[in-house]
Amino acid sequence: MNFVEKLAQTSKKNHSLLCVGLDPDPALMPEGIGIFEFNKAIIDATADLVCAYKPNIAFYEAAGNTGLDALKRTREYIPENIPVIVDAKRGDIGNTARAYAQSLFDHYNFDATTVSPYLGFDSLEPFIQYRDRGILVLCRTSNAGAVDFQSLSCKADGGHKMLFEIVAEKVNEWNKHGNLGLVVGATYPEELKLIRGRYPEMTLLIPGVGVQGGALLQVVKYGVDAGRQKTIINSSRQVLYASKGKEFATAARKAARELRDQINSYLANPN
Amino acid sequence: MNFVEKLAQTSKKNHSLLCVGLDPDPALMPEGIGIFEFNKAIIDATADLVCAYKPNIAFYEAAGNTGLDALKRTREYIPENIPVIVDAKRGDIGNTARAYAQSLFDHYNFDATTVSPYLGFDSLEPFIQYRDRGILVLCRTSNAGAVDFQSLSCKADGGHKMLFEIVAEKVNEWNKHGNLGLVVGATYPEELKLIRGRYPEMTLLIPGVGVQGGALLQVVKYGVDAGRQKTIINSSRQVLYASKGKEFATAARKAARELRDQINSYLANPN
Repeated sequence: MNFVEKLAQTSKKNHSLLCVGLDPDPALMPEGIGIFEFNKAIIDATADLVCAYKPNIAFYEAAGNTGLDALKRTREYIPENIPVIVDAKRGDIGNTARAYAQSLFDHYNFDATTVSPYLGFDSLEPFIQYRDRGILVLCRTSNAGAVDFQSLSCKADGGHKMLFEIVAEKVNEWNKHGNLGLVVGATYPEELKLIRGRYPEMTLLIPGVGVQGGALLQVVKYGVDAGRQKTIINSSRQVLYASKGKEFATAARKAARELRDQINSYLANPN
Repeated sequence: MNFVEKLAQTSKKNHSLLCVGLDPDPALMPEGIGIFEFNKAIIDATADLVCAYKPNIAFYEAAGNTGLDALKRTREYIPENIPVIVDAKRGDIGNTARAYAQSLFDHYNFDATTVSPYLGFDSLEPFIQYRDRGILVLCRTSNAGAVDFQSLSCKADGGHKMLFEIVAEKVNEWNKHGNLGLVVGATYPEELKLIRGRYPEMTLLIPGVGVQGGALLQVVKYGVDAGRQKTIINSSRQVLYASKGKEFATAARKAARELRDQINSYLANPN
């Protein structure tokens, strides 16, 4: 089963468009707990509430080999039916991109990864060759600095379009095998509306709800595809760090359940 | 001593603007040799001929924890006076960028890293805070796909500029502490000329000579700063894989020496 199919199946089974970001930050985690132990508790508490998990590899790299071992164990621990998207935002020239794809897809066996578009098509190609995996290209990121370059008005088709619009257009054009998608932050609802309006069938990863301030109602109104199979709404900190105490996993379950149910309630009543 | 000072000192001492890219590729390396063993032989053979080394982290990640251990040992093995630039091309939102910076600067102790500009200023900020390290921002990359987005003509200052020009302008503006630089590929000599012309004092990392096809004479004519202290001309495969036989280190020394001397000869006679 490929990434797109696995995502559709699990979204449906768990009635959920919620993805939980597994970003272990020692400053926010309960004291004395290891990374894998923490993730295991979060996964046990939320596996029936999510459509996917998304570990950001930076938090594991920051802990050295211990962290990367925990990442591998985490990936292996996640139930087979739940897609795992590694948030790695890689982007390098051909032979180097191939090494990254090998690491993320062959060594770790992730179902999907995020990638950066700045280097253009040939930097994505070694990833795209993995037809059964998902390649989610940064389009409009959720951070404040996203405007610095992504909002530049560029010449296109006799007029002007913003850089992130051109990225979306190119990715759509390059999506011959259906394994490409886009990352569009929840914190920019107008841009999300525009992208979903143009690409109703595109897989969208939408980070930035919760701590980052993205308003959930707007995300649901503007970002979700009609089939409700190609939308991944990610929350990391709001779920993981709902409590720093012993009951952190129970608190995470409660936060994840509320988020999932809130999304479903907005889907039922979008106005 | 900070990165810029270390680079200037070693360039001068070794009469060299050549950086050797330490990109261990099992398909190209002599058979039966380990990554660290390979790098050690290359370093022993070239340490008096380079201004810096540049390991691309992808090749180490592709080998799992063994690879990352070899990266750490390689970094520690390189003589203290030679700056080590990790080619990582990271770019993520604030708290995640901080985790990457910790990994690359605190855990591995690299002198500099490459970063991707797509996410804007706040994605670079956690790196910039390391005042003694170098942060080399992708501007015009050496690959064919560079044109897909980096050449887009964007509105700027009442006219139009290409995306990579705007990236350079912003990086120059953000360079309050002198620790920022740009990556401009040898394969685009006109763009290199333009960038060096505008930013005569900016640290430039210039990859792509040799196997990638960048012409050395043009790189020297257009890319080198007047003080010959802020230019890093990188070659990876042409040096590392000069021979696949037992005498690979001797062959690498010969290739590195020829490249260094060719650069110096072009500097002496640029026409």
